Amino acid sequence: MDTRTGLPVVGMVGGGQLARMTHQAAIALGQSLRVLAVSPDDGAALVAADVHVGQHTDLDALRAFAKGCDVVTFDHEHVPQEHIQALAADGYRVLPGAAALRFAQDKRAMRERLGELGVPVPRWAPGPDVDAFAAETGWPVVVKAVRGGYDGRGVWVVESATELPDLPEFIVEERVPLRRELSALVARSPYGQVAAYPVVETVQRDGICVEVLAPAPALDPGRAVEAQRLAIRLATELDVVGLLAVELFDTADGLLVNELAMRPHNSGHWTIEGARTSQFEQHLRAVLDYPLGDTGLTAPAVVMANVLGGEPGGMSLDERVHHLFAADPGIKLHLYGKQVRPGRKIGHVTAVGSSMAQARERARAAASWLREAR
Amino acid sequence: MDTRTGLPVVGMVGGGQLARMTHQAAIALGQSLRVLAVSPDDGAALVAADVHVGQHTDLDALRAFAKGCDVVTFDHEHVPQEHIQALAADGYRVLPGAAALRFAQDKRAMRERLGELGVPVPRWAPGPDVDAFAAETGWPVVVKAVRGGYDGRGVWVVESATELPDLPEFIVEERVPLRRELSALVARSPYGQVAAYPVVETVQRDGICVEVLAPAPALDPGRAVEAQRLAIRLATELDVVGLLAVELFDTADGLLVNELAMRPHNSGHWTIEGARTSQFEQHLRAVLDYPLGDTGLTAPAVVMANVLGGEPGGMSLDERVHHLFAADPGIKLHLYGKQVRPGRKIGHVTAVGSSMAQARERARAAASWLREAR
Repeated sequence: MDTRTGLPVVGMVGGGQLARMTHQAAIALGQSLRVLAVSPDDGAALVAADVHVGQHTDLDALRAFAKGCDVVTFDHEHVPQEHIQALAADGYRVLPGAAALRFAQDKRAMRERLGELGVPVPRWAPGPDVDAFAAETGWPVVVKAVRGGYDGRGVWVVESATELPDLPEFIVEERVPLRRELSALVARSPYGQVAAYPVVETVQRDGICVEVLAPAPALDPGRAVEAQRLAIRLATELDVVGLLAVELFDTADGLLVNELAMRPHNSGHWTIEGARTSQFEQHLRAVLDYPLGDTGLTAPAVVMANVLGGEPGGMSLDERVHHLFAADPGIKLHLYGKQVRPGRKIGHVTAVGSSMAQARERARAAASWLREAR
Repeated sequence: MDTRTGLPVVGMVGGGQLARMTHQAAIALGQSLRVLAVSPDDGAALVAADVHVGQHTDLDALRAFAKGCDVVTFDHEHVPQEHIQALAADGYRVLPGAAALRFAQDKRAMRERLGELGVPVPRWAPGPDVDAFAAETGWPVVVKAVRGGYDGRGVWVVESATELPDLPEFIVEERVPLRRELSALVARSPYGQVAAYPVVETVQRDGICVEVLAPAPALDPGRAVEAQRLAIRLATELDVVGLLAVELFDTADGLLVNELAMRPHNSGHWTIEGARTSQFEQHLRAVLDYPLGDTGLTAPAVVMANVLGGEPGGMSLDERVHHLFAADPGIKLHLYGKQVRPGRKIGHVTAVGSSMAQARERARAAASWLREAR
């Protein structure tokens, strides 16, 4: 507890944009997020008052960080299992717990557990015999690092065994013929309350999410409910506390689970303006065992587009922001405090409106302008 | 400019809730608000990364603070004129400037200037001869400190000259028979762009604003436009940069200007969820000469209620928040990081909905619960 305010202290391991935006939500709740950042220049470290600089792989740093926190949670999946267990053994409240988080850290464990639960997933094998697997599914296949992948990293589409990346451990999956990708975001509290957001469509390019459409356009209501139920069931079965994002393939034969994340998620950034409760506030409410907030949409159509860094030179980011605001006074901008590098995710924009086509055009135009300045 | 991000640095003098909420808005714009706080326990100092502790009456502290800021602005009106002028003479960009801010600092100067502009105000006199004034208007009269008053402080309703407070300088005004109070909030940029928010009703109790209803219910559209035009005209004539809140009396004979504030204002807190651009973001956009944001409502009815501290004892603030969230999952809470003291403004709540009556009932119930715990 923060003795100055009488309100709880949440510590978030990782100082990226998720912690940065969680800090914004913490401020409204009367709190101040404590952040463990790798560098004082991390996006959240630039804006938070209570910053520890240290490695998330360093147990001593984690222990010093956890001291005085009412609960410790995460901006990423990279804290080793044994460290999370050690913190819990010390008596710190760490949410989501190690047992749950394992299924967001280890793709093989996730696939095995989902199989046990009878949850539909792409055909997969634990590797390393990719030829045998491809003999059944055909080439190309999808190779995924068991650990450490995120945001398109750690995933390869492979045409033959000669193209295999050099990895300590991987799984192989069929390349699923899909209509589109969906994301079902839910929050769950220690008490067991679960709240589901409307299911969204995530639009990928080169393995990176570029746009999120909320709600997913023309999604069959039955399938939307199926996706929400699946996410609620997984949150409960895996004992997740906090947010759970379930990335889904929408196929002709039904839904398949692609990935799980147990933290605020890129597919939920639209909730800042587009839902009554943002995913960042919801994550805080969940890990603090507060009753969860209203997940309803604030408008019929909400589109989030990621802003990637463009080629250097020409117009500065600040000048680009000026022009963007002149062109679209209603666009909502979120910059992450990062140095611009080509292809780096430096922020996002959200367009809220009554028409999905218009909101999408506005979000696209804004993200494209910030990247290309043309 | 912040060399780590290539984005501007705004410094705000004053570390209260206005700076705290402006910091939240700055984060989205890729910035980190620099705050000059009187104490490290000030609401904004608890949550911002770049905090200077010092007095706003200390020119050396102000100079050290201003160094490296692209623009310096204010969370209150208490910086002495000569210090603002000195900073400007040093070459710092200070917005609003001293000449404009004078009319938010000095009620006599404000009344005189509004008179010159032909803007309707209550009948007033510069004091000290209250008897002569009351002989014309009748008792009671309203006595206002020329400087330093805010939020109901510095204002007295006086029944006779024997009740006069001991003040170095005051003005006296007629007690206006009014239907209600309104507030017209506009933003103006150095370029001269002005954006007006919908006019709101402010509900006062004991001289303190307790609720804000957006838009003002049943306000004649002609009078709403008149209020907006008046605020736009004042922002332009007084050369305000940033926000200008014009507090108005709505009377049978028309609108009268009560007070001016040149900063984010309590009557604009509803904009965080209720307008497409919050007043805090808008203030930053204005002082940075960014194009201004969309001021449109996000819903038909938005009600903000201030949360005052209740009597100590019983349920903690954190427990009250738990119960509030259970009772109303859609209520939006903003706590300011202040110690709870009876009658102290410790936060606000906002209810957004389709019906003003329902939104008002929700906001009232939430604020009352947080104060009384019953």
